[in-house]
Amino acid sequence: MMKKVFAEIVNIGDEILYGQITNTNVQWLSTELDKIGVKVVRHSTVADEEAPILQILAEAASRADLILITGGLGPTKDDITKKTLAKYFDTELVINETILAHITAFFEARGREMNESNRLQAAMPAACTPIFNRLGTAPGMWFEQNGKVFVSMPGVPKEMEILMEDSILAKIQAFFQTPVIHHKVIHTIGIGESMLADAIADWEDSLPPHIKLAYLPNWGQVRLRLTGMGEDKEKLVEEVHAEMHKVLPLIDKYVFGFDNDELEAVLGETLAAQGKTIATAESCTGGYLAHLFTKVPKSSRYFMGGAVVYSNQAKIDQLGVLPETIDEHGAVSEATIREMAMRVREVFKTDIGLASSGIAGPDGGTPEKPVGTIWIGYADGKEVFTKKLLLTQDRLINIRMTANILLDTLRRKLKEMY
Amino acid sequence: MMKKVFAEIVNIGDEILYGQITNTNVQWLSTELDKIGVKVVRHSTVADEEAPILQILAEAASRADLILITGGLGPTKDDITKKTLAKYFDTELVINETILAHITAFFEARGREMNESNRLQAAMPAACTPIFNRLGTAPGMWFEQNGKVFVSMPGVPKEMEILMEDSILAKIQAFFQTPVIHHKVIHTIGIGESMLADAIADWEDSLPPHIKLAYLPNWGQVRLRLTGMGEDKEKLVEEVHAEMHKVLPLIDKYVFGFDNDELEAVLGETLAAQGKTIATAESCTGGYLAHLFTKVPKSSRYFMGGAVVYSNQAKIDQLGVLPETIDEHGAVSEATIREMAMRVREVFKTDIGLASSGIAGPDGGTPEKPVGTIWIGYADGKEVFTKKLLLTQDRLINIRMTANILLDTLRRKLKEMY
Repeated sequence: MMKKVFAEIVNIGDEILYGQITNTNVQWLSTELDKIGVKVVRHSTVADEEAPILQILAEAASRADLILITGGLGPTKDDITKKTLAKYFDTELVINETILAHITAFFEARGREMNESNRLQAAMPAACTPIFNRLGTAPGMWFEQNGKVFVSMPGVPKEMEILMEDSILAKIQAFFQTPVIHHKVIHTIGIGESMLADAIADWEDSLPPHIKLAYLPNWGQVRLRLTGMGEDKEKLVEEVHAEMHKVLPLIDKYVFGFDNDELEAVLGETLAAQGKTIATAESCTGGYLAHLFTKVPKSSRYFMGGAVVYSNQAKIDQLGVLPETIDEHGAVSEATIREMAMRVREVFKTDIGLASSGIAGPDGGTPEKPVGTIWIGYADGKEVFTKKLLLTQDRLINIRMTANILLDTLRRKLKEMY
Repeated sequence: MMKKVFAEIVNIGDEILYGQITNTNVQWLSTELDKIGVKVVRHSTVADEEAPILQILAEAASRADLILITGGLGPTKDDITKKTLAKYFDTELVINETILAHITAFFEARGREMNESNRLQAAMPAACTPIFNRLGTAPGMWFEQNGKVFVSMPGVPKEMEILMEDSILAKIQAFFQTPVIHHKVIHTIGIGESMLADAIADWEDSLPPHIKLAYLPNWGQVRLRLTGMGEDKEKLVEEVHAEMHKVLPLIDKYVFGFDNDELEAVLGETLAAQGKTIATAESCTGGYLAHLFTKVPKSSRYFMGGAVVYSNQAKIDQLGVLPETIDEHGAVSEATIREMAMRVREVFKTDIGLASSGIAGPDGGTPEKPVGTIWIGYADGKEVFTKKLLLTQDRLINIRMTANILLDTLRRKLKEMY
């Protein structure tokens, strides 16, 4: 059995301490380290000042095997991470000619002038191995000391991520000989975390000790992540695969994808494969459902368009909802949602129509139709399906949940599940 | 001059270290402490285990005056913050009858049964002052030791925020006699951070030392935050007010609001006040612009609806764009955007129409119209305004930037700025 590797993540930046920016790097790094079987034991954020940086480096080295550092590598005078690292490792800063050539080319390509502080970005602590940054001018730095590894990276999320993916993750795995890890993510919708846990409890209890399960809930969706840890990659992939195929029949109704799949994109591919087109008629979701469809590249293959019919008049003019339907039953009613779903597919000449109408709040509720009362509708050439939801008091949550429930409805219909 | 108060924020939770949840508490707390003039010197996240909690408490106490702790107060066995705090302060856990009554009432109101671990949430370290939690069953805890303050709060963001706002912020200000602080935020759009800094450089240099300026950029908007620090509230408010009125004439064209204002809501109020209505015709923004309008409560007063006209046929059928316009000039052209903006206000019978059509990417670009080529349009009864944008390669960034630029166009037109 291999030794467990412990890591700490250190973010350097006054702007984080002041609350001016969200520290997204720490979650990204934690997730990536978790995936390669490295245990993160502490996150710390300290100021752009020498004393706290030296202090956290010494503290982290006393506890962890691997210390990942982000931030403080820019060319401005505030950014003192590099100088402080040189001091911590008792080493000189030396101009690295390869990096200098890269920085020079970077400025030339952009037709910008290079000044002394830009040139000094090529100065590297002699004790480190520089890590090439193909997106920017601040290289990463890899230090080894007493069997421990310190890695310093830029704070710009995209640059940090590219450095990790290009080389640092592989270097960490090689240096620490971390175990072989294999992940499989199963995406579900339409079932809560605790119901899901009940449904698969026996299977979960029977998992071998080297395969772990995590529940990752998010906006009405729950991801199940299986993580196998071992030494033989091929064998591990087979074992994880076998466990996945044991659990899938138990939750088949709720599974919409695997690994990096997104619901909107999966549904789009299903629509494209089935040669079907779709349109949306939105009142309370106000364009958000159309946005979910259209944020997917190439969605114009199946998404023809949508009507955001906020006023009653727009429902009548744009979709041809009958005025007497709205007069008799109101805009938030089964009769209206039925017409909206049916009419939108005729208006846009599509196979499928989806519709929403409800009281998103915080105002506009009545005793009969309180805030959170929302009707959803689905229509194709053969059937019309409607459903009344009772959601929350919060406008944004109601909008997002309604859109997600409509996507889940579409998913079930495309799979002919009800 | 009062003594500077230094604070550390400690988050306790394995789920943060594993990267399973975003730590939103730390940014919220940092911002609130910054607002009352407390300097945050470190953020730390540690595991739900006794040893690292005891360690970080001792470390933080050696550096800071105020230690804010979140997480680990739930009723499950993983949550050991309270027991560990009792150990750290060498004190007993004692059932607090007032809190027990609150928890009992909480469960009764929900018709749920209360078990022993729920009852134990009323057990408080004898050394602390409990802080009432009106949203949940886990009270906060306030400890004082050697002139330092430790505050423990639940990790659920809404509960933590309510505890802070209800009482903890005021208790901190009273205990440390922090200076009087007054903030004023100015929201701008349509000007970059460095251009803005150039425009107000002389004024910024002339600010008195007790009034500070911060730039907070976000999605094409830049907030300017003025923070005054002093002892006399009334005088301070007047001074900040006077400085604000010096800078406003320099940036008047870009200012859309103050303090907690949001662009969509400000524009909505302007439309309502001017008695104007609006509709949207979206191709490349695909419903996102309509969503920005409709996520604002009561937007049905001025937002009548929108057409998401993704296909050319939808542009023709829904808006009445002439087929020959699309044939001759293409969907991404000035001729088409002009018709879209003009026609959508006729179709929805509104005063104003906004329109977008472009190549959001990542596919679909041509040498003449590369990815990021986007036309926007504005029409009212008197004029039609169109503009060609050249944005990025990233689909989501293009969608959001286009929507923001359309909102800024609307803002300028409503103010008769061009």
